[in-house]
Amino acid sequence: MRAILVLNAGSSSLKFALYAIDAELAASPAFSGQVEGIGATPEITLKTASGERVREAVRTSGSQAEQHRDALNHVFALLKEHHPELDIVAAGHRIVHGGERHSAPTRLDASVLRELDSFTPLAPLHQPHNLRAVRAVLALMPEVPQVGCFDTAFHRSQPAVAQAFALPRHISAEGVKRYGFHGLSYDYVARQLPDIIGARAQGAVVIAHLGNGASMCALRDGKSVASTMGFTALDGLVMGTRTGNLDPGVLLYLMEQKGMDAKALTNLLYKESGLLGVSGISQDMRTLLASDAREAKEAVELFCYRIARELGSLAAAAGGLDALVFTGGIGEHAAPVRAKVAELAAWMGLNIDATANADHAPRIDASDSRVAVVVVPTDEELMIARYTAETLGL
Amino acid sequence: MRAILVLNAGSSSLKFALYAIDAELAASPAFSGQVEGIGATPEITLKTASGERVREAVRTSGSQAEQHRDALNHVFALLKEHHPELDIVAAGHRIVHGGERHSAPTRLDASVLRELDSFTPLAPLHQPHNLRAVRAVLALMPEVPQVGCFDTAFHRSQPAVAQAFALPRHISAEGVKRYGFHGLSYDYVARQLPDIIGARAQGAVVIAHLGNGASMCALRDGKSVASTMGFTALDGLVMGTRTGNLDPGVLLYLMEQKGMDAKALTNLLYKESGLLGVSGISQDMRTLLASDAREAKEAVELFCYRIARELGSLAAAAGGLDALVFTGGIGEHAAPVRAKVAELAAWMGLNIDATANADHAPRIDASDSRVAVVVVPTDEELMIARYTAETLGL
Repeated sequence: MRAILVLNAGSSSLKFALYAIDAELAASPAFSGQVEGIGATPEITLKTASGERVREAVRTSGSQAEQHRDALNHVFALLKEHHPELDIVAAGHRIVHGGERHSAPTRLDASVLRELDSFTPLAPLHQPHNLRAVRAVLALMPEVPQVGCFDTAFHRSQPAVAQAFALPRHISAEGVKRYGFHGLSYDYVARQLPDIIGARAQGAVVIAHLGNGASMCALRDGKSVASTMGFTALDGLVMGTRTGNLDPGVLLYLMEQKGMDAKALTNLLYKESGLLGVSGISQDMRTLLASDAREAKEAVELFCYRIARELGSLAAAAGGLDALVFTGGIGEHAAPVRAKVAELAAWMGLNIDATANADHAPRIDASDSRVAVVVVPTDEELMIARYTAETLGL
Repeated sequence: MRAILVLNAGSSSLKFALYAIDAELAASPAFSGQVEGIGATPEITLKTASGERVREAVRTSGSQAEQHRDALNHVFALLKEHHPELDIVAAGHRIVHGGERHSAPTRLDASVLRELDSFTPLAPLHQPHNLRAVRAVLALMPEVPQVGCFDTAFHRSQPAVAQAFALPRHISAEGVKRYGFHGLSYDYVARQLPDIIGARAQGAVVIAHLGNGASMCALRDGKSVASTMGFTALDGLVMGTRTGNLDPGVLLYLMEQKGMDAKALTNLLYKESGLLGVSGISQDMRTLLASDAREAKEAVELFCYRIARELGSLAAAAGGLDALVFTGGIGEHAAPVRAKVAELAAWMGLNIDATANADHAPRIDASDSRVAVVVVPTDEELMIARYTAETLGL
């Protein structure tokens, strides 16, 4: 089996998927799964094309880097065990940061890797792990071509004014600007849209990628013109444990009045805030929607309200609103969230059909809605596989 | 002459105005001016009702608190010199922070002053100076009733969800929420609106207070429902030297990668950013509009773009847009800024008349505009005088 290996490496996790290439690229992976707990007691969960699930501990010890390599070796061993005839013809990686230059997926060589290393200060929590996976594959299979697929690339089409902060020029010049993330998801969804809403896909579109991480993107002619995530993945919407948009004066207050340093603030704003912090109950939308607690309702209300506010802001960036698209775990499955957002967006002539919404139908707008409202399951791994095939001409 | 004294004390400045009360409160001050350079070499500029301008150095030395008191004494001496028959029946103060409780102007006594002291951590750059002026008047004229007029009070009508950050509950519970500022200006403008746009003043209105400090407020039924300034006056729009809205991850980056502490960040974000930082030329919109430099144009473009984005977000909060109001130095005088914002807001059916805009007419919307567009000069000092008269039943 000729196949593309897709890898998405985080600090303590490694997601993998294998896409067969026959006449064309398969739409579902032959094999996928993830390693979790890297740095502690890593464990692999994998799912075969036939739906079989396997759980195994990873045989490893040593540093986190060594554990990452051991985990990858273990994944390869499982791949060969399940697919003895496997021929990996390329590897595609999710890489969080492509800097200002990379507006498309790129074949990875030593020089590109060095350049990508230089973006680590812009994304210290993700970039080093992404690149470690590339180097691990290089060591194991030096002859296999690898492609980097950047979460930032899709947003490089934004006008300069949408990427700018009102900071002194010397700080902006060193790369402190709005990059936007979730680009693999937005591109995947944007490519599905013409089949669902026809010519409106080229109009003013806002895609809401709502998961544990959440952001929104405004598109015009299928290209990103603005997004809620900024320099980092902390900005914008309320997320599972992240604040999103926050008055910078709050950080100054916490530093001055509480003596919090960068580490404490990072932990607070990335890990203890968002749905979890507001509810005090859970970061999981399903749990909050099932709860009768006032705090849970407040967290859900704030989540939806901020989406509605950003929707207005992004419509301004796109010059209107022809379509609103929900994707990501919450966007695809949480009908009450979509209903609340739609209610708050009624001023734009947006109106949904309650039954279609409850059914998670592809089109959920009511017949009198001026705005198409769409639910599209995203598939970032498949997008990486497609990018990899496109980039290498496979 | 029976009169109300209005005081607006900053860290190094003290603005004052005297409003005569005859049968009713005068609409223009009999006497106004400001002391600048407190802490260095304070100097008074004053303007009499007849238009005469006087400049005098303040005789002072010692601590900043002593200089504040000496400056106020000097102002009183000038008042008596110009108005020997003066009878100050009340003093009204601008006070930046009224906390969560004060939703209206309040007569100041020792117990209220102690409460207001407790808000100093929420507004360390302004609150102590505001309160120092109250105490200085108390020492000089203990029998004169004083009224505190809070910049935050007008926004206390906002729904809880508009005031919330997605922070852990224990941090929100200690008062870390969105207060909004410029409330005296918004209330003054909101009270003028029915005379200008009739019943639409009760609809969905956004007021843009654009000065060296800049913010926007969404109103419904004449009450604030959302604003761009948050916990501090740093959030929201691009300002003369302030960033406005900024990804909190940028602060973490500057702390981690540049070793910046709270003091350095405060200086950067409050004093070196905004129009000044982006242009590298000036914080003054007039200078930037007159400049051909690319950097000046970029600063103006970013200023306008961010207004247009916030306009969309605030329309979402208000449930639509019936009227857009410009006020503040830039809002009242910078026709090119209004024109650019209107262009970016065309998607909402907003359209202005170029001639009316160039003339700074009270109504600048074109006949086919779905949105009323209004220019209203603000007058925060008169608002303080009115609040003071209302509160004391004068």
